[in-house]
Amino acid sequence: MRIVDIRETTVPLGSAMANAAIDFSKMTVSALAVVTDRVIEGKPVIGYGFNSNGRYGVGGILRERIIPRVLEAASDDLLDPASGLLDPARVWRVATANEKPGGHGERAFAVGALDMAIWDALAKAEERPLSETIADRLGDGPAERSVFVYAAGGYYDAEKGVAGLVDEMRGYLDQGYTQVKIKVGGAPLDEDRRRIEAVLAVAGEGANLAVDANGRFDLADAIAQAEMMAPYDLAWFEEPLDPLDYAAHAALASVYRQPIATGENLFHHRDAINLARHGGLRPAVDYLQFDPTLAYGLTEYLRIYDALAPLGWSGARHVPHGGHLFSLAIAAGLRLASSEAYPGVFKPFGGFVDGQRVEDGRVTMSDLPGIGVEGKSDLFAVLRPLAEG
Amino acid sequence: MRIVDIRETTVPLGSAMANAAIDFSKMTVSALAVVTDRVIEGKPVIGYGFNSNGRYGVGGILRERIIPRVLEAASDDLLDPASGLLDPARVWRVATANEKPGGHGERAFAVGALDMAIWDALAKAEERPLSETIADRLGDGPAERSVFVYAAGGYYDAEKGVAGLVDEMRGYLDQGYTQVKIKVGGAPLDEDRRRIEAVLAVAGEGANLAVDANGRFDLADAIAQAEMMAPYDLAWFEEPLDPLDYAAHAALASVYRQPIATGENLFHHRDAINLARHGGLRPAVDYLQFDPTLAYGLTEYLRIYDALAPLGWSGARHVPHGGHLFSLAIAAGLRLASSEAYPGVFKPFGGFVDGQRVEDGRVTMSDLPGIGVEGKSDLFAVLRPLAEG
Repeated sequence: MRIVDIRETTVPLGSAMANAAIDFSKMTVSALAVVTDRVIEGKPVIGYGFNSNGRYGVGGILRERIIPRVLEAASDDLLDPASGLLDPARVWRVATANEKPGGHGERAFAVGALDMAIWDALAKAEERPLSETIADRLGDGPAERSVFVYAAGGYYDAEKGVAGLVDEMRGYLDQGYTQVKIKVGGAPLDEDRRRIEAVLAVAGEGANLAVDANGRFDLADAIAQAEMMAPYDLAWFEEPLDPLDYAAHAALASVYRQPIATGENLFHHRDAINLARHGGLRPAVDYLQFDPTLAYGLTEYLRIYDALAPLGWSGARHVPHGGHLFSLAIAAGLRLASSEAYPGVFKPFGGFVDGQRVEDGRVTMSDLPGIGVEGKSDLFAVLRPLAEG
Repeated sequence: MRIVDIRETTVPLGSAMANAAIDFSKMTVSALAVVTDRVIEGKPVIGYGFNSNGRYGVGGILRERIIPRVLEAASDDLLDPASGLLDPARVWRVATANEKPGGHGERAFAVGALDMAIWDALAKAEERPLSETIADRLGDGPAERSVFVYAAGGYYDAEKGVAGLVDEMRGYLDQGYTQVKIKVGGAPLDEDRRRIEAVLAVAGEGANLAVDANGRFDLADAIAQAEMMAPYDLAWFEEPLDPLDYAAHAALASVYRQPIATGENLFHHRDAINLARHGGLRPAVDYLQFDPTLAYGLTEYLRIYDALAPLGWSGARHVPHGGHLFSLAIAAGLRLASSEAYPGVFKPFGGFVDGQRVEDGRVTMSDLPGIGVEGKSDLFAVLRPLAEG
C-alpha cells in the first residue's frame, strides 16, 4: 500500500453565528485526501481528513511542511511491515520530523487532518469501519455498536431570544437526543439563568443539559456562574476558564461540586498531562474533551488517552469534541462516554451518515468502511473533488 | 499615521546544521513590511518584522487571517488617540480578533512578526531607536546604552569535532564575546564532558559557558547530564526537558543547584505563568528566554514580563531568545540581563548593525531609528524588496 498523492483544500465553514468568544462567519477548515495505490473492488482506497470547527484552515502548513514530508518519504517508512498497510504512527513520525517541541497550535491541526485521512485509508484497506480497526488495535473489547451523543448548539442570537433557544432545543429532543448543550457567559448572569431554566423546562433534569462558556470567564466570574448554576445539577460546565489556566481550574473545582469539562483547546499530550497534574480536576466527576482532528490526530489522541489513564482518567471520562464522524468512530472504538453532535450547525463537517438516526440519545454506527464520509452526501460533495484531483 | 500596505514573504534560513532535536536546512522564516503614510525626510515610514530561527514561515496565516484583519480595520482602531501614531496594543487586538484561546503555535509567530514591524514603525515615527521608545513607555529608567550578549553556536558537527568546536568558540572570544553557548545532549555523556572541558579551557570559568539541550532529555537523562555538569558551575543548562513538562523542571531544579534556562518554546503569557507556577524554577537563580518575535511580539512579551514580575521574576532573569536586533532593542529598553547573539549562524536575521562591535561581552546600541534593520546590509537586502512592493 503506497501513498500516490495527498491533496488539500480550504473550505469556508460559513456559520453565521457567535459563541461567547468568537464569530464563526469567517472560519475555514482544511480538508484533504490521501490517495493510495490500494485497489478494492476496482477503486483506489482514498482516505479523507478534515479539521473540526472553531480554528482555521492550515493549508500553508500542509503544503509547505506536512504533505511534502510524507510524499518524499520512502514508502517503507510509512508502512506496517507485518501487514504492508499504512501505519498511522509511522506516518505521524515522518509528518512531524524536524519540528521543535512546544507551540502546539496550527501545526497540530495540519497533522490532525492528515492523521485522520491515514486512519480512514487504513480502515478502508482492512474493509471495515474505523471503530473496529481502533477497537482491534487496542484490544479492549469490541467497538460499541451505538454511541451516546449530545446535541451542541444554543448559541446566542438576539433575534431568536429565549423562545427561539427553547424551540431549537425542542427540535433536538424531537430528533431523538436526550442531552443538549447551550452557550453561557455571553450574557448577564440573570439572562443565563433564564436560558437554563427555559431549556430545563423542556429537557427535564439537569443531567440533560450541559453549558459551555468557551473559556471566557476569569476565576471570579466562573465562580459566580458556578454558584448560580449549582442548584440545577447540570451535566457539565464546559470551558469555564482559559484552557491553559490550570490553577484557576483547580480553584473552581474546589468550590463547584458538579462536573467541569474542558480540553478542546489543548492539542498535545504534554498539555493534557499538565491539565491532569495541575488543573485539580476529578477523575470521578469531570470530563475531558480533546479533539482528535485538532490535536495531531487519533495517533496523538491515543497518547493522551494512555498518558492520562494511570492518573485515573478512564474512557468513561472522555467525550471527544468536534461533532463529526471521526470523533464518533473513536468514541465507539475506544468505548468512550459519548461524542459531541451538532445537529444544527457546522455543516457539512458536523453530523452523521445520511439516515443515521439518534434514538434515546444514541446513534447506531454505520457499517461503511473507514470513517464513513462517503455515506454523508453533503460532506462527500466537498471531499470527493479532492479525490478526483 | 495610517497603514497603507502590509507585505510578507517567506525566506529560507539555509543553515546546514543540526542541534540535538532538529535539522535547520529546510527551515524558513516569515518577513514582512508595514508601509505607512507617515513621511519623514521625504520617505515613508516602513516597519519591518520577521521571526527567529527554529520554527517555520507562517505566510498562510499572515495572508489569510492576520494581515487582512489589520488592513480591513478602521484606521482609528489602530492608533493611539493621543499621539495619532500606531498603537501596538490596538493593532495586536485587531490582529488577534476571532481567535479561540489556547493553541499558541504558528499563530503566535505570525502575530509576532507583525507586532515587531508595528513597533519598528512606531519608533521610526518617533524618530528614535526602539530601545528608547520601549524605555519611555515603561518609565523604568532610560534604555541601556549597551547590552551584554552571549555567543550561541557550538552545534554538533562530526567533521569539525572537538578541535573545530574550540576553534569556533575561540573565534567568538576573539570577536569580543566573553560568554559562549554550545549544544549538549546530542552525544553520549562522555563526549559532552569532553566538549565542555575543551571549551572551558579557552573560555575560562564556568560562568562563561552555557549549554543547550533543546528539550531533548527525559528527566532521568537530564539529571544524569546535570550531575555530570554540576562541578563545572556553568552559566546555565538550557532547555533540559520538554518545554511543557513543568513537573519535570521542578524535579530537576530540586537536584541541580546551578541555573536552568528555558522559555523559548512557550509563546503566550498563560504558558509562561504555568512555567512560573508549576515549573519549580528559582527567580534568584534561573533564566527565562521567551522570544518576542515568536511569542506574539513585544506586546505579548510585555504581558509575560508583567505577569511574572509579581512572582519574583525581574528583568535581571530575562534573556530573550533570537539573536537579532529586535531582542537586542528589547533587552536595552527593558534593561534585561542580556540578549542572545548568533555570530556564526542564522544569517541574515541573526546579528547586529554593520560595524556594531562587541567589547568585553557588550554591544553598544546604534542610534538608528526603530530596530535598525536598515543598518544591517545583509538583512536589509532581504527586507528592502518588500518595501518596494
